[in-house]
Amino acid sequence: MKRVQKLIKHIISRVNVNLRPMGLDVEQALSSTLDGNEMLMDYAYYALSIDHPIYFRFRECNLGGSYFLGKCDVDRSIVLRCDIRGDELKAAGTEVEFGGVKTELYRDEIILVVNSFLYKTLIHNHSRNPEIPELFRIQNTVSMHYANIHGTTTEGAYLGAFATADLSVLHNCILGNYCYVQAGDLSKMCFDPGRIWIKADGKYEFAYHYPQAILEKYISWDQNGELAGLFADFLKNRRSDFLPVYDSLADKLPVWVPENAFVSRYAVIKGDCVIGENCLVAQRAYIENSVLGTGSNAQENSFIVDTHFAGLVIVAHGGKLVHSNIGEKVFIGFNSFLRGTSDKKVSVGTGSIVMPHTIIHASESIDIPDETIVWGYITTQSDLATQSMSLADFSKLTEISIGRMRFSGSGAEFVRDFQNRVEHILVDNGARYAGNHESRGHAQKTQYVSYNLFQPYLSGEKQGMFPTIIVNDD
Amino acid sequence: MKRVQKLIKHIISRVNVNLRPMGLDVEQALSSTLDGNEMLMDYAYYALSIDHPIYFRFRECNLGGSYFLGKCDVDRSIVLRCDIRGDELKAAGTEVEFGGVKTELYRDEIILVVNSFLYKTLIHNHSRNPEIPELFRIQNTVSMHYANIHGTTTEGAYLGAFATADLSVLHNCILGNYCYVQAGDLSKMCFDPGRIWIKADGKYEFAYHYPQAILEKYISWDQNGELAGLFADFLKNRRSDFLPVYDSLADKLPVWVPENAFVSRYAVIKGDCVIGENCLVAQRAYIENSVLGTGSNAQENSFIVDTHFAGLVIVAHGGKLVHSNIGEKVFIGFNSFLRGTSDKKVSVGTGSIVMPHTIIHASESIDIPDETIVWGYITTQSDLATQSMSLADFSKLTEISIGRMRFSGSGAEFVRDFQNRVEHILVDNGARYAGNHESRGHAQKTQYVSYNLFQPYLSGEKQGMFPTIIVNDD
Repeated sequence: MKRVQKLIKHIISRVNVNLRPMGLDVEQALSSTLDGNEMLMDYAYYALSIDHPIYFRFRECNLGGSYFLGKCDVDRSIVLRCDIRGDELKAAGTEVEFGGVKTELYRDEIILVVNSFLYKTLIHNHSRNPEIPELFRIQNTVSMHYANIHGTTTEGAYLGAFATADLSVLHNCILGNYCYVQAGDLSKMCFDPGRIWIKADGKYEFAYHYPQAILEKYISWDQNGELAGLFADFLKNRRSDFLPVYDSLADKLPVWVPENAFVSRYAVIKGDCVIGENCLVAQRAYIENSVLGTGSNAQENSFIVDTHFAGLVIVAHGGKLVHSNIGEKVFIGFNSFLRGTSDKKVSVGTGSIVMPHTIIHASESIDIPDETIVWGYITTQSDLATQSMSLADFSKLTEISIGRMRFSGSGAEFVRDFQNRVEHILVDNGARYAGNHESRGHAQKTQYVSYNLFQPYLSGEKQGMFPTIIVNDD
Repeated sequence: MKRVQKLIKHIISRVNVNLRPMGLDVEQALSSTLDGNEMLMDYAYYALSIDHPIYFRFRECNLGGSYFLGKCDVDRSIVLRCDIRGDELKAAGTEVEFGGVKTELYRDEIILVVNSFLYKTLIHNHSRNPEIPELFRIQNTVSMHYANIHGTTTEGAYLGAFATADLSVLHNCILGNYCYVQAGDLSKMCFDPGRIWIKADGKYEFAYHYPQAILEKYISWDQNGELAGLFADFLKNRRSDFLPVYDSLADKLPVWVPENAFVSRYAVIKGDCVIGENCLVAQRAYIENSVLGTGSNAQENSFIVDTHFAGLVIVAHGGKLVHSNIGEKVFIGFNSFLRGTSDKKVSVGTGSIVMPHTIIHASESIDIPDETIVWGYITTQSDLATQSMSLADFSKLTEISIGRMRFSGSGAEFVRDFQNRVEHILVDNGARYAGNHESRGHAQKTQYVSYNLFQPYLSGEKQGMFPTIIVNDD
């Protein structure tokens, strides 16, 4: 594995060039995370369909367990068990607007991953970078377990476990574990673990900060640098259910799926499940004894166990729900954790918004009313007093400090932006499919996908390295 | 499948340009053989190892179910369930000799398949073409079920079912079903079904011709142009055993394999089997209740059922054996069929040669002595009188006409060439492996192979077409 060792050193040096001046050395993070076995035994795979642009170029990489869709160029990187989803890449000629200035894409947009180490990370494009809108770039970046890089170019960035960078541009930034940042163009910033920060210049700013002691119960590093805590345990207990899914090529799902819905053959479906019309269940989603009402979607790394969804529920990347009842058109944000039990359910009413990175760990039944926004850390019904608000009340806010949350700006715009985004996600995912070509979303467009599996060299100096692979459609 | 239809028309026209003047229209052969399902549902795969040169380029193709190894360039072709094995490709700088004249390879040798339709065909290189030794070319060629193209470039060629072109150059040639031709540089020749012809200029010539009525019991086309006869039945009955092998990615074999032996995960191993040291079992081989002694090999499309091998037995591509006892260092030629039953065994003694395309269908026990050469169609012990000879006697021949066989030239050279080839195959396949790097053969070199799976578009105009894929090692 001489070549892999060289590659690891190269990535560490390129990331450290950016981040060591900020006090972070990524060497420890990489060495405790890299598992030689994973790099050798897991295949990578890319999807082929006529409904997505096709271009893949992989050079000097290990890509064990990762999934690629769209146009992706990965160079000098280690990308393990990640999802690189370019299904919203813009085509050449598309007009884009940045701060009122318009320009046209000269070429098709492409995802470029270079000099980076990504682990179990979700990358979904929809770039917001005005510099080269043709390029959704992840460069000199280290991202750890279940991080989300969403609509965000990153250059010289570190994302801790379960961290999310959303609709931003990160340049030399450090996000601690379970940070959520959605704040435009960021440079040389360092975020503590559990910091939730949403900022739209001139419109609003939302901030919440998890108590460190509580956060560490859920997400921490053990003395060997390995992921520990309740989230890690939760995932570890379900890992073996994915093995048969990845070991088999047979295209049979253990559940009936309506024609206009899509369940990835790389999802786990366990026990009694019902999949409604226009539903989308992505690869690496996990559904057990649950009902997904019409138009609901379960995105990558989401876990839905003993849970009932009315229609149009969105579970963003990494959302986890156990023993929950979720009403219609509820948004469950990135990496949120709703943990009920059979006798202490978590219920969320119609039209509510569960903010990204919310933890609802029920020590009693918890009932969130319709049209509510909820954030932070909740274990009892009374916690809701300082960690939720009706959308109507939130819309009247201009400034508030409540519990560990601070908000300033236009509450109305904040709520409206969220609601618009929810509708946008529903449309993109095919929840609004009406039988015609125009209303198709990801659920319908991924119906006829074939998967292509590729692996590294298994021995010798190049052990662990993938050969150069180019796939195009000319 | 508009693009596939266009491709089919293109291939038919390019082959017919060459063969229609000779009285053959391949349109019927193609249309009755093409199964749209096969083209969509079967993945193709290529092997990656540090012990083989790596270069793949696939353009404008359907490759359903096919396997590629080495350096392969496939363009404008339909290659279904074939094995394209470039593990004996020569490297740049290799000195080659043609009729006493020496030249050096300018580039690495590569297998090129262009404008061709190949079905369940085995292509193994080791080219003999003096024109461009860098290019092992299969061009404007149609080859049908279980044909073998072995060390043979073909341009404008048709090979019927179970036909074998061996160590030759075919230019505008037609080989009927079950033809075996090994005869140097051939142009504009047409061979009836069941003709066996070996010719080495200035050395010897061997010819046998199957009675047509008998051959048709084993291999024929039915009224729909589909393969029929006992060979087709034999294969059909065992087809379903391959399904779990192709549906699974788990790398577990149902048999213990010595460290120095190799059993492809794409072989079927059924019942009680013993795999000896230094054995090689290739992809698409089928072993059931059989013992493979040390250094034996079962090549592609071979079937070994209720059979015992002493050591160093070679079963060439497509050889089938049922209820047989095979002695040490026996060669079972291409597509031979040794069909015993539990009470009527076929036994072959030490050092014997079963010529390519031999059918031994026992209506009583058949016992072939040591050091014997056997050919043609045999059902009883007495048939051996006209269809076998001791190697010692054969070595004394200069001319003979016996049964349906004619031989002229040096029997001694014929036997010596065969025996040299047998030893060569054993070395190449790793039967002579002694624990050191130099003595490694295919069995040892394919130990650390990873497989890469790729598929066509599943819908739309491009349904059935693979995208362009380039894999290299730079």
